[in-house]
Amino acid sequence: MKIAVLGGTGDQGLGIAIRFVQLGEQIIIGSRKAEKAEKAVKDIKELLENDDLDNLKGLSNEDAAKEGDIIILTVPILAQKPTLDSVKDSVKGKIVVDATVPLQSNIGGTPTTCFELWEGSAAERTAKILKDADVKVVSAFNNISSSSLKDFDKKPEIDCDCLVSSDDEEAKKIVMDLIERIPGVKCVDCGLLEQARTVEHLTALLINLNIRYKTHYGGLRITGLPDK
Amino acid sequence: MKIAVLGGTGDQGLGIAIRFVQLGEQIIIGSRKAEKAEKAVKDIKELLENDDLDNLKGLSNEDAAKEGDIIILTVPILAQKPTLDSVKDSVKGKIVVDATVPLQSNIGGTPTTCFELWEGSAAERTAKILKDADVKVVSAFNNISSSSLKDFDKKPEIDCDCLVSSDDEEAKKIVMDLIERIPGVKCVDCGLLEQARTVEHLTALLINLNIRYKTHYGGLRITGLPDK
Amino acid sequence: MKIAVLGGTGDQGLGIAIRFVQLGEQIIIGSRKAEKAEKAVKDIKELLENDDLDNLKGLSNEDAAKEGDIIILTVPILAQKPTLDSVKDSVKGKIVVDATVPLQSNIGGTPTTCFELWEGSAAERTAKILKDADVKVVSAFNNISSSSLKDFDKKPEIDCDCLVSSDDEEAKKIVMDLIERIPGVKCVDCGLLEQARTVEHLTALLINLNIRYKTHYGGLRITGLPDK
Amino acid sequence: MKIAVLGGTGDQGLGIAIRFVQLGEQIIIGSRKAEKAEKAVKDIKELLENDDLDNLKGLSNEDAAKEGDIIILTVPILAQKPTLDSVKDSVKGKIVVDATVPLQSNIGGTPTTCFELWEGSAAERTAKILKDADVKVVSAFNNISSSSLKDFDKKPEIDCDCLVSSDDEEAKKIVMDLIERIPGVKCVDCGLLEQARTVEHLTALLINLNIRYKTHYGGLRITGLPDK
Repeated sequence: MKIAVLGGTGDQGLGIAIRFVQLGEQIIIGSRKAEKAEKAVKDIKELLENDDLDNLKGLSNEDAAKEGDIIILTVPILAQKPTLDSVKDSVKGKIVVDATVPLQSNIGGTPTTCFELWEGSAAERTAKILKDADVKVVSAFNNISSSSLKDFDKKPEIDCDCLVSSDDEEAKKIVMDLIERIPGVKCVDCGLLEQARTVEHLTALLINLNIRYKTHYGGLRITGLPDK
Repeated sequence: MKIAVLGGTGDQGLGIAIRFVQLGEQIIIGSRKAEKAEKAVKDIKELLENDDLDNLKGLSNEDAAKEGDIIILTVPILAQKPTLDSVKDSVKGKIVVDATVPLQSNIGGTPTTCFELWEGSAAERTAKILKDADVKVVSAFNNISSSSLKDFDKKPEIDCDCLVSSDDEEAKKIVMDLIERIPGVKCVDCGLLEQARTVEHLTALLINLNIRYKTHYGGLRITGLPDK
Repeated sequence: MKIAVLGGTGDQGLGIAIRFVQLGEQIIIGSRKAEKAEKAVKDIKELLENDDLDNLKGLSNEDAAKEGDIIILTVPILAQKPTLDSVKDSVKGKIVVDATVPLQSNIGGTPTTCFELWEGSAAERTAKILKDADVKVVSAFNNISSSSLKDFDKKPEIDCDCLVSSDDEEAKKIVMDLIERIPGVKCVDCGLLEQARTVEHLTALLINLNIRYKTHYGGLRITGLPDK
Repeated sequence: MKIAVLGGTGDQGLGIAIRFVQLGEQIIIGSRKAEKAEKAVKDIKELLENDDLDNLKGLSNEDAAKEGDIIILTVPILAQKPTLDSVKDSVKGKIVVDATVPLQSNIGGTPTTCFELWEGSAAERTAKILKDADVKVVSAFNNISSSSLKDFDKKPEIDCDCLVSSDDEEAKKIVMDLIERIPGVKCVDCGLLEQARTVEHLTALLINLNIRYKTHYGGLRITGLPDK
């Protein structure tokens, strides 16, 4: 199962790619321009001090989406629509994991607050943009900071749950199993995709806490739940 | 410092009252009718198997607000405005802790989703309703389930952080210190009162998780923060 | 074609009923209790000074929904869910016209502001509640004040457009044709049901204007549109 | 009284400038770059077939704001924050008229829907950004289409009301008097600035109608109000 990380040259995309590369998954970094994706691949190889990684490559978003079985979207919210429009024909029937968040920093403001999309959440917006592409949209990764993902050497175990929501039970299960391979991460099944509204807003709250408490590793654990 | 719990006959109010009574705080249960408050006092005494509690009494909301130094509001959202209107003259200059949440169950629907108030959050609405009363509004207690509060014998330690927000730093500090006396609870300073929007929505998400995972103790811990 | 006005004993429902009765339509007033509906029928007959109206009757909401071909919902927002739940089995395949508005006065507040439903608009909420009943939901009547509807003798012509939205083109057309029979009213096709969000909020703005300008007849006309 | 139109090179800004120039007002077009503003001035002179207009000039936004007594903001929503930040020191104590609308087309989407700002409306956001500058923010112009403003020769009279809201009664009055000088336009006093939320959303609804009814002149008239 190949994983394409669209917008994989940003902090969060890079972090996700690094973690999965380490786990031996086949990863394709996607970017608007293939060269930027290739540059990101080079950076990751340096970071991992391993020049022979054969489970990582860089392509344009379109080509990455074509080749990937699971597509992870980690672009800034302003790039959400154009990126999804550009890969519409390549994602038919696939699982699309949405990690975008409508932080107000994207529209000139602070990342400690969100704006609200007409569609409810960024994840629901992805579902609407791709509604003719028969994809299964899963919201995930919103609350895990890019620092927690990227600082694999300082903090190999991530002390954060991943809140996952989707209208497709099977796709949700596949994504949860995949994400739980990352050391320390436990997935919490939040139900329908619409719950992503709260989860996305929580990202702004955690960024707020990071700023207030002067850290980059703010996260959360859901407590009190029995194993499902 | 006396604590008045308005709407203290509901599950959450009762739970808060029990915990603080156990800690030796002076507690006044408030209710629309004094008799209901007195009945709640009797119930708590039975629960605690202690008939001689001299730090607990029941009054009408108005009288409770008059006597209390810190006012905790735990009424359903539909009672928020009338309750606050009824105590306006008694809360001048005091700290008002808002624990109300605009769950859609209050308007015929499910507690797993929220509606959104024109004022932003229930806590900001409390501030607006009381804007002439010179109160310091603090949002707290939203995410601690009433079961976690009430089941003091089965689960003496509460495995949940309390997310606190306020525009008044001093009042926030007082409330955080008070709440952290409850065994297990750690307070997280979320900054301005407007952050209550996300915290309130989180309540619906946790109720959703309680239902999905068949429990009553769903909560959360913020991770990765240094001690402030 | 019979028209059932659920919640037809309120100001808006009464007004709609009166206008359609005058036009010779078959009207059934629905109310939670049949007696209240019958009382409303009696009131209308007195208002119209006509004791022999054979195109008007009063029934319980359930029976009204059963008999009606077009169902108009004019209940307060807090009664929306229970009312729709009670008629679910009787509205299968029918047109349901939603006229409810989430005014904050319904939750203890002012009618000059709205709260926002998780579902987006009251009309979309109706569609969601009835999603298994195969109904065609049309949003209409929100912006026509109850006074404009009821004061048929002082102001026979209503100086207000009716903004109509629906995901079902055919049902929308039927409802628009019906409503345009009311003297003075012109319908504007606003497109998809989700546009009801703005139309509902506009109701609060018009109430605000009514209060500021000391009238009960505030309405609006859309200008600059060619005939469609 | 000089009027600075920031973002005056866009369609709406140009239209507003043209109308006020025709009325003999002193107009300063502001743009991020002074050259663009000068180009707009040249365009307007050509449009009005008058090369000797001495009541119109083009400056950078900063200089325009410095010179203007009333500042009209007509930038796209993504430019709102940076533009206001750049003129903060020049607008002290002045009236700022906000005409921005959070259309989803600004974030990759359709202009027939809006996103919602954390601050409530674009106008309230302007007030918040400038909260230390002691300005009086007035929301206006949202619902008058740029075509209605610009097509002064084909349609000299604008068939649209201007919905105006502000927390400052005096500033609101000044702005209303100014805007009502435009032929055909009547101002409606909508009360507090927070009402801009609905007025801004109405813009998206009118654009929606323009598209559906294939026109550029969709507007609205409020009916039923007595003269205030």
